Amino acid sequence: MTTETTTRVVTRQAGPQYDVDELYEGVLKANTLHLARAITLIESQRHEHRELADQLLTKLLPHTGKSLRIGLSGVPGAGKSTFTEAFGTYVTGEKHRIAVLAIDPSSPKTKGSILGDKTRMEHLATNPDAYIRPTPSGCTLGGVARRTREAMLICEAAGYDIILVETVGVGQSEIAVAQMTDVFVLVLVPGGGDELQGIKKGIVELADVLVVNKADGDLERAADRAKGSYQNALQLLYPSTSKWIPPVLKVSSVENRGIDTVWETLVDFKDVKQEDGQFEKRRMAQARDWMWSEVGDNLMEALRAHPAVNAMIGELEGEVAHSRATPSAAAKAMMEAFVKGSYRP
Amino acid sequence: MTTETTTRVVTRQAGPQYDVDELYEGVLKANTLHLARAITLIESQRHEHRELADQLLTKLLPHTGKSLRIGLSGVPGAGKSTFTEAFGTYVTGEKHRIAVLAIDPSSPKTKGSILGDKTRMEHLATNPDAYIRPTPSGCTLGGVARRTREAMLICEAAGYDIILVETVGVGQSEIAVAQMTDVFVLVLVPGGGDELQGIKKGIVELADVLVVNKADGDLERAADRAKGSYQNALQLLYPSTSKWIPPVLKVSSVENRGIDTVWETLVDFKDVKQEDGQFEKRRMAQARDWMWSEVGDNLMEALRAHPAVNAMIGELEGEVAHSRATPSAAAKAMMEAFVKGSYRP
Repeated sequence: MTTETTTRVVTRQAGPQYDVDELYEGVLKANTLHLARAITLIESQRHEHRELADQLLTKLLPHTGKSLRIGLSGVPGAGKSTFTEAFGTYVTGEKHRIAVLAIDPSSPKTKGSILGDKTRMEHLATNPDAYIRPTPSGCTLGGVARRTREAMLICEAAGYDIILVETVGVGQSEIAVAQMTDVFVLVLVPGGGDELQGIKKGIVELADVLVVNKADGDLERAADRAKGSYQNALQLLYPSTSKWIPPVLKVSSVENRGIDTVWETLVDFKDVKQEDGQFEKRRMAQARDWMWSEVGDNLMEALRAHPAVNAMIGELEGEVAHSRATPSAAAKAMMEAFVKGSYRP
Repeated sequence: MTTETTTRVVTRQAGPQYDVDELYEGVLKANTLHLARAITLIESQRHEHRELADQLLTKLLPHTGKSLRIGLSGVPGAGKSTFTEAFGTYVTGEKHRIAVLAIDPSSPKTKGSILGDKTRMEHLATNPDAYIRPTPSGCTLGGVARRTREAMLICEAAGYDIILVETVGVGQSEIAVAQMTDVFVLVLVPGGGDELQGIKKGIVELADVLVVNKADGDLERAADRAKGSYQNALQLLYPSTSKWIPPVLKVSSVENRGIDTVWETLVDFKDVKQEDGQFEKRRMAQARDWMWSEVGDNLMEALRAHPAVNAMIGELEGEVAHSRATPSAAAKAMMEAFVKGSYRP
């Protein structure tokens, strides 16, 4: 007896397939599935996906920009998720659509991120006018920041008119967030005395609005004191000619108090900045700076990847750190290895 | 009658001559003439001089680093020159040797600089233990900063154990100064009420020590009030775990009061930072960062000078600023032109 077997050959193409036109149409129709796929596409590290992503973004570009881009930072324990939930619920109640993105380059790929953790924002996660996305994973802040900026553009094209970009404030991530948003909000909690917990050197200087969270129960009086002291401090530390001195707002996210004032303050800020053209100027400068910073990153990446340069980096850093070689001489050595001896400073 | 004329041919070599060994010996002997020539050499834009400068700096490197590097900023009118004069006179009286350098990239080449203007520091200019040098001229902050850092190394090799690097605070020059010094001093003047004049956004955050100058005569009470308010403000704006919260010191440069306290405070700062190794770590990080920032500058310069790239910059910046092209796509276009189509992101 002979047994015949037929083997059906299944050719699976490498990786997921993306149809730029389909995604384009879907995003403009605010189809959440296509929105998610589009963002996954731009997060992909693969070369062929990057090309498709660039095509998609270029097509969507005329539909972007029509939002208020809000940066948000605060240490763990400041109640950022609770604040975001309350804020998102409020603005969607006012007929806005909010996208919540995150930058957290330290987040290990497998563990996921604290930010964009939908379990901490249960209501917002099921709100049809809200979209929440965890941080893209990535090794460099530059790479993560680029993907987040592009995700922001896609969300804008999908009709989200408020974009919230959060960070826990690791390394330079607050600066990256400030560089891609229109207004930066810092969430802090009272420390018991006059002071606020979570102050990091330089962070207050970035903020356009300070929110004292957890201004309820035992902490309410501390919140009042902190608000007063910080308002005085900021008044001193800003040039007297400033059109905007960061206000300090008390909020209780759990009791849902003060959230409306935060929103009105952000609208005020936008109005003030639009009055003298600063709002648009800032966005244009941010776009140009983004371009140059990508050029810089690409150049540096190319240099560091060059075999001859790569081989000398460790030693040169050591020589320079221990004052055995001048930084200029070391820089020149790297440049010469990179352009194979034809470099003329 | 015939007249014979002989023409003596003088072959003049292009530009001044520099003998690296002679300069090396002279600098180590603290010969001011050689010190000045050495700094002029490193300020030169000419390629052959740059090579000699690198040789000289490498030879001198083991003799550098033995100083306290102090950054100083304050708006015009804050009395920086008077303060520097008083400070320099005091520390030389305590057997130190002080070099005063400046960073002022906006200073037009022909007009000279306000900083390093010896007529404003008459006593210090004739003090044998002080050396004053105006800002190097230059188009880019990066170029000016590099020359100043190198001048600093040469002064250290010549035995100056206090280096003061001043700036009027144009653009990013304060940040450049903070990146090459151990401690940053901000000089401000009372404004009449509680506030201090000359506050610039972000500048207080850079400072390790604040000096309220002109605390004499009519302004003395205002200086007292300002000192109190700013001390409170800084207490709030620094993490409670900070080992150093910038003190606010009252000084009258003309009446020579408070200068000794400034010096003692700087010595304190160095002690605090050396206790946990921060002082050395900071210098090592600054040296490494200087190397990478030169590499970055060199790469960007090479890219911008590339004819194909140069031709597209204006248009790309416009496209990007007006949201007609994504910054990533524009960056890629430049990279491709730079590496002639072989660029793979």
